Amino acid sequence: MAAGNQNMDKNTIKKLQAIVGAGYLVTAKEDLLCYSYDGTGQEYMPSAVAFPGSAAEISEIMEFANQEFLPVIPRGAGTGMTGGSLPVEGGLVLVMSRLNRILEIDAENQVAVLEPGVITGQFQAAVKKLGLFYPPDPASHDFCTMGGNVAECSGGPSAVKYGVTRDYILGLEVILPDGRLMHTGVRTAKGVVGYDLTRLFTGSEGTLGIITKIIVRLLALPTHKKTYLVLTDSLQQAAVLVAEILKSGVLPNTLEYMDQTALHVVNEYLPLELPSSTRALLLIEVDGNEKSTEEQGGKLLSLLADRQAYPGILQVRQAHNEKEVEDLWKARRSISPATFKLKPHKIAEDVVVPKTKIPHLVDFTEKLSRELDIIILTFGHAGDGNIHVNIMLDKDDPEENRKGETAKRRLFEYVLSLSGTLSGEHGIGITKAPFLALELDETSLMLMQKIKKVFDPNNILNPGKIFSIESH
Amino acid sequence: MAAGNQNMDKNTIKKLQAIVGAGYLVTAKEDLLCYSYDGTGQEYMPSAVAFPGSAAEISEIMEFANQEFLPVIPRGAGTGMTGGSLPVEGGLVLVMSRLNRILEIDAENQVAVLEPGVITGQFQAAVKKLGLFYPPDPASHDFCTMGGNVAECSGGPSAVKYGVTRDYILGLEVILPDGRLMHTGVRTAKGVVGYDLTRLFTGSEGTLGIITKIIVRLLALPTHKKTYLVLTDSLQQAAVLVAEILKSGVLPNTLEYMDQTALHVVNEYLPLELPSSTRALLLIEVDGNEKSTEEQGGKLLSLLADRQAYPGILQVRQAHNEKEVEDLWKARRSISPATFKLKPHKIAEDVVVPKTKIPHLVDFTEKLSRELDIIILTFGHAGDGNIHVNIMLDKDDPEENRKGETAKRRLFEYVLSLSGTLSGEHGIGITKAPFLALELDETSLMLMQKIKKVFDPNNILNPGKIFSIESH
Repeated sequence: MAAGNQNMDKNTIKKLQAIVGAGYLVTAKEDLLCYSYDGTGQEYMPSAVAFPGSAAEISEIMEFANQEFLPVIPRGAGTGMTGGSLPVEGGLVLVMSRLNRILEIDAENQVAVLEPGVITGQFQAAVKKLGLFYPPDPASHDFCTMGGNVAECSGGPSAVKYGVTRDYILGLEVILPDGRLMHTGVRTAKGVVGYDLTRLFTGSEGTLGIITKIIVRLLALPTHKKTYLVLTDSLQQAAVLVAEILKSGVLPNTLEYMDQTALHVVNEYLPLELPSSTRALLLIEVDGNEKSTEEQGGKLLSLLADRQAYPGILQVRQAHNEKEVEDLWKARRSISPATFKLKPHKIAEDVVVPKTKIPHLVDFTEKLSRELDIIILTFGHAGDGNIHVNIMLDKDDPEENRKGETAKRRLFEYVLSLSGTLSGEHGIGITKAPFLALELDETSLMLMQKIKKVFDPNNILNPGKIFSIESH
Repeated sequence: MAAGNQNMDKNTIKKLQAIVGAGYLVTAKEDLLCYSYDGTGQEYMPSAVAFPGSAAEISEIMEFANQEFLPVIPRGAGTGMTGGSLPVEGGLVLVMSRLNRILEIDAENQVAVLEPGVITGQFQAAVKKLGLFYPPDPASHDFCTMGGNVAECSGGPSAVKYGVTRDYILGLEVILPDGRLMHTGVRTAKGVVGYDLTRLFTGSEGTLGIITKIIVRLLALPTHKKTYLVLTDSLQQAAVLVAEILKSGVLPNTLEYMDQTALHVVNEYLPLELPSSTRALLLIEVDGNEKSTEEQGGKLLSLLADRQAYPGILQVRQAHNEKEVEDLWKARRSISPATFKLKPHKIAEDVVVPKTKIPHLVDFTEKLSRELDIIILTFGHAGDGNIHVNIMLDKDDPEENRKGETAKRRLFEYVLSLSGTLSGEHGIGITKAPFLALELDETSLMLMQKIKKVFDPNNILNPGKIFSIESH
């Protein structure tokens, strides 16, 4: 357990209880523990955890916290991969789970209004019933919340065709660190009135304000979808196929890949026996209206049928039924948790490179793995160049720890040398904060810190994130 | 000519000449006049106009201007509709026309890098040759510049399907008001490193920094397109059709409408004789791959064939050939300039309402026109609820002037009562600045002004825009 926890004094506890009700504030160590960790596997104890029931309560909490210089850390489901919801300086964790209502789905205008605690997958299911579509689909969508998705600007497999969370957020209701409630954006398709505060809050990792309401743009649900699976005998062949598919004019709504190690850890979920020479799998979906899906599927299959051009293809298979599609997706979504079969800890990165550089990147990680003698698996959103690189290690082994840190730094340097970026969808949090200056120039960093100061002059809202300069 | 002009002292002129070269600084009144106006028809004389040739020169100019408290107004092609490029406090206009190179088109990664002075239509043509597509298409795309489009976050007819400028900008190179050069964003499909400064600059109307380089995301060029024209005997029937088309699952890349007055002023460009009972025209395009375009076209035609449901349809016609399509578009794009046949001046608004509220809005403007006895024409992007409302008047007639201002305020109030917004693509500039507080809450306004101060503490960059509280 890392530092951070401080006991909260009685007066503070009383005041917070008076705001949220005694039943919605917890301070017992065993309760706090449940809110001390996130998807990084790191742990920091909060001083207290509150479960506010309304924006008005959050506003009162923030006004008080701002006076008392009490750190406040908003938390969705804690599925973040960079430590965004960890109370690294102790303080009050605000769990948003009670603000979990879908307030409105305006089907005709394709707009919804919802609270931040709504679970992403449940929201997607609710709009689907009305023939509507909310595309962003992080792998954790059965658990993660819309508020967390907005705070981190989450992506997912569908981003290759449909973009990321940012592209669907029209407006927000936000509580500022001093307790003031404000609104940003619009509920219309377009809007350019004043500076774009909606997108400034989106991806700001809970450091500028607490989101209490989200206005979301929806699409019409595609009527048809086809799912394909391709096995190859090398990672390079898979990477080349990705580039060729994208060049062919097919725009898949999913173009995911898994390397050999990723396949190994989710083998039990796969709906087929893998040939022993399998080194990579591509999961490809096309969607749209009936004719368009047919046309894209046909184009894709005829490209993949050219075995002279792509001798590394071992098998091409169209999912036979809904069950097979579900199994494939289950396998895909299980990779991240299943990696812990290999080692107790990992460094999980979500770098992005230009699509044509994917072969370079997978080549680099394979060599790095051999050179450092450490397990590195890669998988993810090949279609948009957003590759998940998991460096597996045992933190109790100082040698592996050191190798892991070396691998991470060399990965970042290489990705930037390819004109890539350190994060496509996880954000900076604490795990990438020490590397921020590798990517951003000094002026950008200075401006971002000044913006933080405008919104949060006392630095009480999610302190220690993004700009922290110590290594965690 | 409004106030603003001050003569520039000799030392300042010398200094600026030393930076850009004597041939690229003009101070003679007849030269300044050419840069004193924009699409609003308003005029403010600058003290000087410079034509910098590089980011380095702009950086030097800004460093000097910041020391001297000299207002600097960046200018693209001056096609803006809200006064964003007008030197309302005099000062130095920076014309970006020499920074007009497309630096790179990376076809495989679907990314381009270009300078702000590149003309939007020329950029579109350049990427089209490579099978690529840059969708944002403001009506002025033959003249307007990419830098201006980013500054205003321009839209256009294609926004209904493809979104606005913001959705295509991956990263920027910017000179801050103190002369420092910085980079924002990425050149990959995804990126969430730090606060979203790219989208903070986009739509900031040249008040936060001077854009010197733009990284743009491109799409594959749709292979097929079909263009349709529908005439109706009432505006209401046209508005109802818009809602029905969008509900049908067809996602057109254009769903424009023109009312009777708009049709009247562009009559000469139309490729057909209008029946005398025509009150509105819809211009509809669908695009995509071959099959998808066919399917959408078929759906659209079968919907429009239901004359029992839509008795107000007078005619449905598919454009026979490329010439007819061009003529239709010429007519559409000529509306705004052609309105001056009716009156010497106009108040041109670009309000947005939820799509289902379009019938309410057109009903309101028709009644308002009758009540105030003033010409109001409406046209524009019905597909996304972004309606251009042109209030025609003669500014030398105090009575019409007064009526125009009344109509504008009542329009804004009505649009906001429908959960709409004051601007979909023109921005605030000076013409909407007095109305900003109708839409934004006090806290938002305060934050925006503080952000302006972070970027431009001396208020030298495009002063008097967005936040001006006087009526212009």
